[in-house]
Amino acid sequence: MVPMRSTIIHAAGDVRLDTIPDPTIIAPTDAIVRIIRTCVCGSDLWAYRGTEHTDEPHPIGHEFIGVVEDTGTDVALKPGTFVISPFSDSDGTCQHCTNGIFTSCEQGGFWGGLNRSGEQLGGAQSEYIRVPFADGTLVALDDHPDDTMLASLLTLSDVMGTGHHAALMAGVKPGANVVVVGDGAVGLCGILAAKRLGAGRIIAMSRHEPRQKLALEFGATDIVAERGKEGVAHVKELLGGIGADSALECVGTKGSMGQALSSLRPGGHLGFVGVPAGAPELPVGAIFSKNLRVSGGVAPVRDYIRELLPDVMDGTLNPGRVFDTEMSLNDVSSAYTAMDERTAIKVMLTP
Amino acid sequence: MVPMRSTIIHAAGDVRLDTIPDPTIIAPTDAIVRIIRTCVCGSDLWAYRGTEHTDEPHPIGHEFIGVVEDTGTDVALKPGTFVISPFSDSDGTCQHCTNGIFTSCEQGGFWGGLNRSGEQLGGAQSEYIRVPFADGTLVALDDHPDDTMLASLLTLSDVMGTGHHAALMAGVKPGANVVVVGDGAVGLCGILAAKRLGAGRIIAMSRHEPRQKLALEFGATDIVAERGKEGVAHVKELLGGIGADSALECVGTKGSMGQALSSLRPGGHLGFVGVPAGAPELPVGAIFSKNLRVSGGVAPVRDYIRELLPDVMDGTLNPGRVFDTEMSLNDVSSAYTAMDERTAIKVMLTP
Repeated sequence: MVPMRSTIIHAAGDVRLDTIPDPTIIAPTDAIVRIIRTCVCGSDLWAYRGTEHTDEPHPIGHEFIGVVEDTGTDVALKPGTFVISPFSDSDGTCQHCTNGIFTSCEQGGFWGGLNRSGEQLGGAQSEYIRVPFADGTLVALDDHPDDTMLASLLTLSDVMGTGHHAALMAGVKPGANVVVVGDGAVGLCGILAAKRLGAGRIIAMSRHEPRQKLALEFGATDIVAERGKEGVAHVKELLGGIGADSALECVGTKGSMGQALSSLRPGGHLGFVGVPAGAPELPVGAIFSKNLRVSGGVAPVRDYIRELLPDVMDGTLNPGRVFDTEMSLNDVSSAYTAMDERTAIKVMLTP
Repeated sequence: MVPMRSTIIHAAGDVRLDTIPDPTIIAPTDAIVRIIRTCVCGSDLWAYRGTEHTDEPHPIGHEFIGVVEDTGTDVALKPGTFVISPFSDSDGTCQHCTNGIFTSCEQGGFWGGLNRSGEQLGGAQSEYIRVPFADGTLVALDDHPDDTMLASLLTLSDVMGTGHHAALMAGVKPGANVVVVGDGAVGLCGILAAKRLGAGRIIAMSRHEPRQKLALEFGATDIVAERGKEGVAHVKELLGGIGADSALECVGTKGSMGQALSSLRPGGHLGFVGVPAGAPELPVGAIFSKNLRVSGGVAPVRDYIRELLPDVMDGTLNPGRVFDTEMSLNDVSSAYTAMDERTAIKVMLTP
């Protein structure tokens, strides 16, 4: 077994590129993927910042694209195939997968975490990764893409699919007035998704100039820099005092959830995809009295890869622009620092 | 001014048929309606039981059908017209009414409560009622209906529309597996609504024999009498261990909300219409991890009256059977007792 390098989180603030044994085929449904590009996610920061406690060192990172290197005997995918991985594995056969909720797969789990069986899954900020249920998890491309496509393809692993999930859950319809709370990569992809679904007005709540700029380029029609009550007041002023038809909550904190809910008109839809941290609340009284629709969760991105891929391939959807920084996997620690200090929107890593 | 009789709640447990001044036309958009049938709602019991505090005596009751007696100069409805009233008044012209969320009307309010302007509205458990915004509120029938139709028509004022709202918010689709939590009139109407929308399996959670019987007659395919963890386990057992596609929450308590949420499969829809009491919670973590869709609120029944009326008129929808007891308005106090003690499912009152 040849050793490979894989990012391990040892404690809050302590991520290291460690050398660990190369992954090998264990089950006949496994594949080994050589990772071509990976990246750091806003949700990786919950552990990095200690919001989520790290009990013992474990692999981290859940977004990757790569090339199939080896497969088990039951895998239809061929070695050499270029694949996009959702941020979780899924058997593709259980009732939840059949229902399209791949993230609730009876056997699956999240990269860097545990499968339902308790098995530790590899992390994506690595050179190689073992993919259980390869056929139920990976989405194959017909050909190897051009290098210029890699950034946009990598977003289909998580942030673009998650932004799309937010927009779908928020019921974005043609002509709708939409508010997007959160100017991280997911929020920015949420803007792209809302635009793609035909939103009329898209208000991006952002205080950071480079993100405001990208938000406008992605399709935002208005920027609201204020937060809290002032933010809600500004949104309502822009929308004739009524509030938004749809709100995309792309952060996961109490403040962002409150902001999104308060921005909605009666009968409005909230789509929330920010991983809950900092005790966000869904106030039943306010939801009841305003007849709100609240939907969200861990985006089942696998189907969205298939849905969004044609738009990425023909160049009409360019979510890869959320990667404003590129580094070598060797510099993964600096990538976390850049994300944590918000000097980068999102960092793409090349092993 | 001739005095009329109207039900007034003076304090918890103390409702009386008091004599008060007859309502008169005040604004040109007003109508006076002579009430033909009214009834007691499960939500009236929150005040009756003291869950909701009564600061000072006020009219109570919000469901009625009747005949237009007099109109202001701007009202298109003609005296003599038979009308169904939603449980709230609405101007029919503001943005919220245009959006179909009549219960959030910028000027409206609930019968027995206050309009947005602070004006006290009449109660429906009365002989007459003044209806502001008559054209935006009342739904007219072409002819006076037969007496045998009155019970079903009266349910369109609230409980049938509310059950329909629960089913719509719970995204009930043809063939769906549905759980209905709550065996009051709204829950029973929710069963009818789910059946009407094509649900495949409808599990009614009920411990009361007469209600179980009506639930089955209304279209329930299974009865689950257990509550709490046992109830959820029984529901999941009936549904192959997966959980329901849709859950209708028709009570409004912490227990019923938990029951409904826990019965759902990942990606399932909750429609909640029980007026929140007893601190129901929407646990964001569970909703996020299971990708649930949670929608609900005060049913905007006005549109539903128009949607459901043809089915009631042609006899395919018979929600009036929820009225298992009929009394004279003179006996309104006994009607509250019967509802409170659950010896009646719902009491219809004739002034």
